[in-house]
Amino acid sequence: MRFLSESTSDGATEREFVHDGVPGILWTPAGTGSPSRLVLGAHGGGQHKRAPRSVQHASRCVAAGLAVVTLDSPGHGDRPRSAQDDQFITDIRSGIAAGQDVAALLSEYNALMAARAVPEWRSVLDALLGLPEISGDGTGFWGMSMGSAIGIPLVAAEPRIRAAVFGLVGASGTLVNAAAQVTVPLRFLLQWDDQLIARDAGLALFDAFGTRQKTLHANPGGHHDVPEFEMDSAVRFLAR
Amino acid sequence: MRFLSESTSDGATEREFVHDGVPGILWTPAGTGSPSRLVLGAHGGGQHKRAPRSVQHASRCVAAGLAVVTLDSPGHGDRPRSAQDDQFITDIRSGIAAGQDVAALLSEYNALMAARAVPEWRSVLDALLGLPEISGDGTGFWGMSMGSAIGIPLVAAEPRIRAAVFGLVGASGTLVNAAAQVTVPLRFLLQWDDQLIARDAGLALFDAFGTRQKTLHANPGGHHDVPEFEMDSAVRFLAR
Repeated sequence: MRFLSESTSDGATEREFVHDGVPGILWTPAGTGSPSRLVLGAHGGGQHKRAPRSVQHASRCVAAGLAVVTLDSPGHGDRPRSAQDDQFITDIRSGIAAGQDVAALLSEYNALMAARAVPEWRSVLDALLGLPEISGDGTGFWGMSMGSAIGIPLVAAEPRIRAAVFGLVGASGTLVNAAAQVTVPLRFLLQWDDQLIARDAGLALFDAFGTRQKTLHANPGGHHDVPEFEMDSAVRFLAR
Repeated sequence: MRFLSESTSDGATEREFVHDGVPGILWTPAGTGSPSRLVLGAHGGGQHKRAPRSVQHASRCVAAGLAVVTLDSPGHGDRPRSAQDDQFITDIRSGIAAGQDVAALLSEYNALMAARAVPEWRSVLDALLGLPEISGDGTGFWGMSMGSAIGIPLVAAEPRIRAAVFGLVGASGTLVNAAAQVTVPLRFLLQWDDQLIARDAGLALFDAFGTRQKTLHANPGGHHDVPEFEMDSAVRFLAR
């Protein structure tokens, strides 16, 4: 892991890094003498490591005493897109514009994304847990939409992650199988009028999680309308 | 309203009362100089004004600075049962014991209960809002199961109630119509494995509420397994 920059403001130290070719940002509470627990923050489709929602979520976590890491997902942010990435994005965008049901396309794209991103996250976690400012005492995961499609198989595979917030994603074959292997406490956010995720598919995925410590929070509104109070509440959940 | 007793412990003043033949309890924060906002707490079927869950909820509300009133519902607690009450209770109990679907029976019983209880709650509210220790600045409602079946038409009819926590109840004709008229912020609790309320019926009722400020919280477990953290969280919601 190679750190590229470091700056501190508003109580948070921000460091850009590259790890095995993957660009990321690590935020830690500034000036605390003790190691902070870590939250892995995975952005949604079409977003990147410094998307406004990711940065906002990171600053709330840091204010609660947590460290946060975000990465550019494969084909996102500063990373090159493959021809296959381009084709998926074109097909998904044109499907949405034409009012078609893009659930199957999104699932397929997300599954390919997860296959590439999960090993990256595990390798970044190895590196970060070696830093003295990061505590290994219970890592959390946060990611909505494509971030959940990556996070669910990641949390299923990674025993060091002990709590997770998922949401805005529906049941598909691979995701249901991964969800069944998730045994940590989790919160699952759904938007009741999500234009991309069918209500039944979201509820079916909540149903599929293997853990008994799972809570569904659903609010009116579309895919991009998760209320601010749910973001705050999710940070409190991860901080516990 | 005739007060029968008064005692104070653990920062709460408890007064038993009778109002137009309806027995109830009022808890208020002790020793505060200013009026407290009020929460109406309606117990579930087969319970009463001093059921453990109601008392526990009241003490949490008082700790958060709220006053709470509970009543014995018609045919419950210290109140006489009609022959019709007895028949419903017998039928519901034997249906549950035989593993039958009692949803329609419960809906019918609950609708009759609401028709009797809603005017009682409104009259008690009139009386309590006349007390100097009760603030009229935003009353809340809390009630699960039969408590929601009473509360949903009550909140639909009563503009002085400004926030509500409902749950453990499913869609039926009269309840769906009342829910559509509820326009205040609300939280709706469902148990994912509720043996009395079909999951789809609960989700359909959440869908039916007329307000846009509604949040569904669902947790694994049966009708009587609402987690403690949801009770705490609901008090914070009502205190806002």
